Amino acid sequence: MNVTLLHHTPLTITDQAISKCWDKECDINNPNEEKINRVVNKFKHQSTVEHLSYNFEIKGVSRALLQELARHRIASYSVKSTRYTLKELKKELTFNDFSNDFQYKRSREYVVYTENQAVDEAIFYALAELQVLIKAGISNDVAKYALPEAYKTELIWTVNARSLKNFLSLRTDKSALWEIRNLAHKVYRTIPEDHKFIFTNDVKI
Amino acid sequence: MNVTLLHHTPLTITDQAISKCWDKECDINNPNEEKINRVVNKFKHQSTVEHLSYNFEIKGVSRALLQELARHRIASYSVKSTRYTLKELKKELTFNDFSNDFQYKRSREYVVYTENQAVDEAIFYALAELQVLIKAGISNDVAKYALPEAYKTELIWTVNARSLKNFLSLRTDKSALWEIRNLAHKVYRTIPEDHKFIFTNDVKI
Amino acid sequence: MNVTLLHHTPLTITDQAISKCWDKECDINNPNEEKINRVVNKFKHQSTVEHLSYNFEIKGVSRALLQELARHRIASYSVKSTRYTLKELKKELTFNDFSNDFQYKRSREYVVYTENQAVDEAIFYALAELQVLIKAGISNDVAKYALPEAYKTELIWTVNARSLKNFLSLRTDKSALWEIRNLAHKVYRTIPEDHKFIFTNDVKI
Amino acid sequence: MNVTLLHHTPLTITDQAISKCWDKECDINNPNEEKINRVVNKFKHQSTVEHLSYNFEIKGVSRALLQELARHRIASYSVKSTRYTLKELKKELTFNDFSNDFQYKRSREYVVYTENQAVDEAIFYALAELQVLIKAGISNDVAKYALPEAYKTELIWTVNARSLKNFLSLRTDKSALWEIRNLAHKVYRTIPEDHKFIFTNDVKI
Repeated sequence: MNVTLLHHTPLTITDQAISKCWDKECDINNPNEEKINRVVNKFKHQSTVEHLSYNFEIKGVSRALLQELARHRIASYSVKSTRYTLKELKKELTFNDFSNDFQYKRSREYVVYTENQAVDEAIFYALAELQVLIKAGISNDVAKYALPEAYKTELIWTVNARSLKNFLSLRTDKSALWEIRNLAHKVYRTIPEDHKFIFTNDVKI
Repeated sequence: MNVTLLHHTPLTITDQAISKCWDKECDINNPNEEKINRVVNKFKHQSTVEHLSYNFEIKGVSRALLQELARHRIASYSVKSTRYTLKELKKELTFNDFSNDFQYKRSREYVVYTENQAVDEAIFYALAELQVLIKAGISNDVAKYALPEAYKTELIWTVNARSLKNFLSLRTDKSALWEIRNLAHKVYRTIPEDHKFIFTNDVKI
Repeated sequence: MNVTLLHHTPLTITDQAISKCWDKECDINNPNEEKINRVVNKFKHQSTVEHLSYNFEIKGVSRALLQELARHRIASYSVKSTRYTLKELKKELTFNDFSNDFQYKRSREYVVYTENQAVDEAIFYALAELQVLIKAGISNDVAKYALPEAYKTELIWTVNARSLKNFLSLRTDKSALWEIRNLAHKVYRTIPEDHKFIFTNDVKI
Repeated sequence: MNVTLLHHTPLTITDQAISKCWDKECDINNPNEEKINRVVNKFKHQSTVEHLSYNFEIKGVSRALLQELARHRIASYSVKSTRYTLKELKKELTFNDFSNDFQYKRSREYVVYTENQAVDEAIFYALAELQVLIKAGISNDVAKYALPEAYKTELIWTVNARSLKNFLSLRTDKSALWEIRNLAHKVYRTIPEDHKFIFTNDVKI
């Protein structure tokens, strides 16, 4: 799994937004963290952090994770589509032996493994089967029904700080699915250092 | 696939909403279809149909379809969770022979078949493999990574008429995935007769 | 101020939605309040009440209130438009004397009074001035700039239970503007008795 | 009226988003306008421009305009609050004579004039009356009911490119209120030159 922050709105915009409500001055070059923290996290005036938008590139997550991520509806998604990209399996070496180290290593490009041997073997052979279907020329729109949910995808994910607070709070929780919990922690680590205080209380360790 | 309309807002609410904007009278018991059609579909004043909410129960669709459906973000979703329900496979008869009619028939309770023999066989054996994992006591959160996307799910889906117009327009299109296209047509057929004119132009045949 | 609930989704839909997540049975004719309360208010699984939609007709509120109400973005609004309806002042008796009881009483049809004598007098004469402009044939789009924010409006307001919980929580608070606080309490009283438990903890007295 | 673009997401993010869907390469330093235009404006795959967020500072618009602007719900608003800022009228020179050039000039700091003499005079005297109330120590929450809708406000407005396309399309239209039409054109002019092609077809002249 790989998370990169491609772009983010500078913190000063939220300082300016807060100042606007009370018609106060603010130092554009020196956003006031203490003030932002008080307004957002103490007074819960959370609309003031909606102005901060983060563009993440997320790679190497499973479609099982995507099922959960996409339920965060206040966010934008541009996702690698299995409808258009399954042909990538065609030019790949043939998968047919889970015990073959080289095949196993190559297969990691396509699926997320769980570290449970029995499950990983099932995933590998589902991938091998899918490859057979694709190589046989069956259309992606039909073959994709045999796709295991471990299949890897990637996306550009854009989310504002308010929705991201909600995401981090729900998905760093112990009750969250292990992979999305892992993602949530990586997303948090990717947030710019000077923005982190906005989210600190939302993250569970 | 099974679509049931559990509840819907009566058409008169939109008639009242339109009348409100211009402070006109309206006949509460006799919503004016011609007026609604003109305002919504000709003048594109679509916020007036947001007041109409539809609660659908959708059964027997694949998780491949759910991946696409959930991208319609202006809607509400309560979905059968694989994290809590995969144990259903435990008490099921053992799947191990695709050519066995009885097994095949039972398996249809769990997966959506594509009518492509090779793909369906791959789906069946992925299901069989998943069952082995579940019966072996592996936790749902790990085993679900071997789930084929054909696996069936069900949900309560609530959507307002404006978002539903967008859904029908995109998903009845020829370029849509066959299963969601099928769903879109079923949803349209399930809409109350006196509401259908709102959506007629959005549906492609 | 007048609040009428025109329509609402029956409670059973949320019971069915909750049951769907865990694939449990539920008694469609007998929604389980204790279960709903636990899931929504204790476990904060609030998406399950998004399925409940309420259509309110709200009359006799000021445009000052509308400024605040419209900031609740997860809701639908069809509002009486000053751009189209200010001509109502044309056929009205002439407003020119705040001390005249009959004029005062008629003026209440158009403006929200504050019970502060000095403010109310200012509102009355602003209304009188507006009437002069409208009677002089000045277009609504220009004359409306002289409209006092006390001017009354009405709307159809549709909101789901999740967004309504947020509205009630913020707007029944002591720090809320008196008129919207008043509205929030009226909205709460208008909610069907068997739905009230969803919102009880959100309402401040 | 004054519109400043405080920050925006670089165009390349949308290029990367589009490339992600089809798993194509893109030149990060050289976003492909032709491709973006084709996907967004021809194929109407508009979610790909949701990744672009614009933070505007808007000053000197009326609260009449704010009533309309705030109805664009897919956007974020931090607005100067009359509940906290009306005291600004206290320290201002006394408004009591519309024909006094100096007073007129000062009053322009507080209200939007319409260039209709009769309306402007009504606005001026409503402002003067409001000032009397504020100077008399009446609380903002009550006095604000006498506020004319011409009263100026300012805000930080954040909107993504998809919602902005909708805004420009509706609000540059001839049927739009003159002031918001004016705003829409100013907003368009403030958009970075290399982003303008996304919106060109939405803008009516």
